[in-house]
Amino acid sequence: MAVGDARLVLVAGTTETARIDGISAAGAEPDVLAHTPSADAELLAYGDVVRAPAVPESPTGCPTPALATRAAREVLGFDLTVVDGGLDAQTAAPTVSVGAAPGQDVREPEPVSTAPGAFTAAKRLGARLPEDELVLAETVPGGTTTALAVLTALGEDATVSSSLPENPIERKREVVTEALEASGASEGSFAGDPLGALRYVGDPVLAVVAGLAVGAAGAGTRVTLGGGTQLLAAAAVCRHYGCDAPLRLATTSFLAADVPIREAGADLGLDVAVTDPGFDGVDHVAAERYLAGEAKEGAGMGGALDLAARADALDETRARFLALADALGGEAD
Amino acid sequence: MAVGDARLVLVAGTTETARIDGISAAGAEPDVLAHTPSADAELLAYGDVVRAPAVPESPTGCPTPALATRAAREVLGFDLTVVDGGLDAQTAAPTVSVGAAPGQDVREPEPVSTAPGAFTAAKRLGARLPEDELVLAETVPGGTTTALAVLTALGEDATVSSSLPENPIERKREVVTEALEASGASEGSFAGDPLGALRYVGDPVLAVVAGLAVGAAGAGTRVTLGGGTQLLAAAAVCRHYGCDAPLRLATTSFLAADVPIREAGADLGLDVAVTDPGFDGVDHVAAERYLAGEAKEGAGMGGALDLAARADALDETRARFLALADALGGEAD
Repeated sequence: MAVGDARLVLVAGTTETARIDGISAAGAEPDVLAHTPSADAELLAYGDVVRAPAVPESPTGCPTPALATRAAREVLGFDLTVVDGGLDAQTAAPTVSVGAAPGQDVREPEPVSTAPGAFTAAKRLGARLPEDELVLAETVPGGTTTALAVLTALGEDATVSSSLPENPIERKREVVTEALEASGASEGSFAGDPLGALRYVGDPVLAVVAGLAVGAAGAGTRVTLGGGTQLLAAAAVCRHYGCDAPLRLATTSFLAADVPIREAGADLGLDVAVTDPGFDGVDHVAAERYLAGEAKEGAGMGGALDLAARADALDETRARFLALADALGGEAD
Repeated sequence: MAVGDARLVLVAGTTETARIDGISAAGAEPDVLAHTPSADAELLAYGDVVRAPAVPESPTGCPTPALATRAAREVLGFDLTVVDGGLDAQTAAPTVSVGAAPGQDVREPEPVSTAPGAFTAAKRLGARLPEDELVLAETVPGGTTTALAVLTALGEDATVSSSLPENPIERKREVVTEALEASGASEGSFAGDPLGALRYVGDPVLAVVAGLAVGAAGAGTRVTLGGGTQLLAAAAVCRHYGCDAPLRLATTSFLAADVPIREAGADLGLDVAVTDPGFDGVDHVAAERYLAGEAKEGAGMGGALDLAARADALDETRARFLALADALGGEAD
C-alpha cells in the first residue's frame, strides 16, 4: 500500500507553439496534439483513455511514455495528482487548478500571461502537499521548444531533446530566436527574472512545475523532477528564482543518450538519476521504437522508472508496460 | 496494490440550501459549510486538508466521516476520483468537471439549472470509467433536505437521516413544501421525470451521482452507492430514469439505526449492506460522537467501510480512523 508515500504530480497543458510545423511528435497529427496531455493524464489516472479519443502514439506506432509511468504506478501503487497546466481539451482525469491557461504561440509577444499567477498558486500548493516526496512531471506537446527558449532567455546551456529520432533542433532554434525577438529579449536577458522568462518566452506547464518545485522544496519536501530537458528548464527557473534546495532530476536512458543531461544537471546543482528500463533485446514494437530514439521521455516516465528502480521493481514495470502497450495499442487504430 | 480494483468516486458540491438555518451539521458555522466538501475531498485525496481551512467537525467535535473513508483508503489502497458536483471553494483535490454549478436555494423556482447537463455528462463519464466496480459517494452540506425534496417529488417514501443527533425533520419538511410550491410541483408530480425533480427541487450532487450510477450500471460496471438517504434518493432517480440494473447501497450502522434504510432500499430494488465500524466500547471522543448519533454517514463512509468489511480489514480501518482523528483533530483548533 503506497498511499502516503511519494506522489507523482503530472502537470498537463497545451500551447499554440505545438502547432508550429515540425517540432513535436507527441501525437501523430496536429489536431490530435491538443488531446495528448488529456490522454496522458487519463492513462495515468485510469490505465486507459476515457474522454480522450485515443492513446497517443507517434506516426510509427511508438506509444506515449505515459504507459511506462502508468505501468510503474500499477506496480508500485504511488498516488497521483494531475495539475491543469493549461489544458485545452476536457479530460476525465481529475485535475487541480492553479489558474493556468493554454499558452499562446511562443513567437507572440506575451504568450503566457498566466505564468506568474500560476507559478505563485503552484508554489503555494507545492508547499502544502503533505507527502515526503513529490515526483514532478510534464506533458505538453512542443514543450522542448519553449524549454529551449526559457533556458536561452535565462542564459543557461540551451540543449534540449526531442520526441523525434532526428531532433529538429535547428527549427527549434529558429522559433526561439523569433520568440526572443518578439518579446524584446535576448540570450540571458531574463537571467534572474525567471517569471519574466516564463511569461514572455515560456509555457504554462513550465511555470506550474517550477512553482510546485520551489514551494515543495522550500517546505522541506523531497523533490524529484521526473523528466528530461523540460524538467531541466524547470530546474533552471527554480535556481534563478533563488531556490538552492537539493533537487533530483530523474530521466530515462533514452534521453541521456540524446543530450548531455548529467552535465547540464550538474551545472544547475541537480542530483541526476538515469534509469534504463531494459528494453534491449525485447521483442516488442514499443521497445524497439524507444530503442530507435522515439519518445524517449515524458509524462513522468523517467521519474516513474526511478521510483521503480529504487523499489527494485524495474523488471515488473517493464513487463507491465509491454502488457499495457499490447492492450491499448489496438484501441488507437 | 489496489490501483485498478474498485474506485471510489466522491461527488462534492454545495448549495444555498445549506444556509437555511438549522438543517445541517456538516461544519460548525454557516460560513464554514462551503469549505466542507472541498475539505472532505482533500482529506480523501491527501489525508489532510491542503487548501481548505480546517478539518470539518461538528460543534461538539465530531470529525467528518471523510476520515473514515480516508482510513479505509489508506488500509485498502483503492483509487479515488473526485467529481465537481458544484464546488464553491477552490480545492486542492483533483476534480473532474461535468458542468455542475453550485445549487441555489431549493426554495427558488429552478435551483439546479445545470442538473440535466451534469447528469448527462456524468452518465457518459460513468459509462467510460474502466474499473469493475465504482463506489459512489457524496459530500454536500444540506444534502438530506434536497434528497427529501427529490424523494417527495418522485412520490417515493420520503425518509431522510441527519448529521445531527436530533433530526430537524419538521424543518426539512417545511423547506421541502416551500420548494415544491415554488416550482409548481407536488408529491409525486415528478414521478417518471427524475431530471425535472433534480432541476427544480434537487441539488447538483444528486444529479451527478445518479448520472454516474446510470452510466456505469448500463455499461455493466458494478455500482455501490456508498452512503445513506442521499444515495437512496440518487437510487430513486436512477429507477425513475429507467435503470433497472442491480445497485448496491452500502451505509453505516449509525445511519441504519436512524432510518429504515433496509426497507427503503428494498422498495427500490437495492441490495443494502450495513456496516458497523465497531466503535462500541472504544474510548475515543470521535467514536463516542458517532455512537451518540452525530454525523452517521457521508463522504463515502458506508461504502468505504463496506469495502473494508469485504476485505476483512475493519479492525485496521477503525484503528486508522482513530489515529487520523487524533492527528487531525488538533489542526482544526
